[in-house]
Amino acid sequence: MKKIEHIGIAVHSIQESRGLYEKLLGTNCYKTELVASEGVNTAFFKTGENKIELLESTDEQGPIAKFLAKKGEGIHHIAFDVEDIFAEMERLKSEGFVLLNEVPKKGADHKLVCFVHPKSTGGVLVELCQEITENNG
Amino acid sequence: MKKIEHIGIAVHSIQESRGLYEKLLGTNCYKTELVASEGVNTAFFKTGENKIELLESTDEQGPIAKFLAKKGEGIHHIAFDVEDIFAEMERLKSEGFVLLNEVPKKGADHKLVCFVHPKSTGGVLVELCQEITENNG
Repeated sequence: MKKIEHIGIAVHSIQESRGLYEKLLGTNCYKTELVASEGVNTAFFKTGENKIELLESTDEQGPIAKFLAKKGEGIHHIAFDVEDIFAEMERLKSEGFVLLNEVPKKGADHKLVCFVHPKSTGGVLVELCQEITENNG
Repeated sequence: MKKIEHIGIAVHSIQESRGLYEKLLGTNCYKTELVASEGVNTAFFKTGENKIELLESTDEQGPIAKFLAKKGEGIHHIAFDVEDIFAEMERLKSEGFVLLNEVPKKGADHKLVCFVHPKSTGGVLVELCQEITENNG
């Protein structure tokens, strides 16, 4: 794990929450992106070397819709930037962590991503992410 | 808000969770600190320019004990580093955010801190923190 890449926050509506986070963070949302494969709309804010990612569900059976129904709005996951996602997935598996996907998939913000099951990380949903390049995409 | 200073994670036992987070983050805990006034023990890990703070309750009526009873282990708060905590508290109040303390208090890791009520921040418990110096302590 190189560093925290972003913190994902589940919201009912990006349109309704965007202004709140702009006021809180004192910075404007610089990008929105639909990730159709995950059933989410995302909105990004910069803070230091990290990002805050708002997540809104576009699929009422999707993971964000289920999270909101169970827990309400709030922090959904921590994403860590990794040097080599394949190697980091192998390392975590060998340490006993449970991965939610066997191979990396394409996430928001031009990343390869893999989630780690919160049952193996003390209740924290962890995402690994690595910038997609010519060599790994 | 300058940047994310740390992410606070509530755990039942630092002794039991410390090894898990060392494996996950690939780095050793570099400090533990009792914050008696808040009824918590803390353990810190570095990741990039941020920290992960594990929080264990030493007071069964304290905020971490209540959080664990209600939600179980998991992400508890996001702390942001601020330039001038007094000015940032005023700015947030004027924007309609609800502060949990009227004046900054001493937190872990040699910081002045103030919490923002999650009901005003879309369910996210936010902490402001500023390094204690000769001038503000």
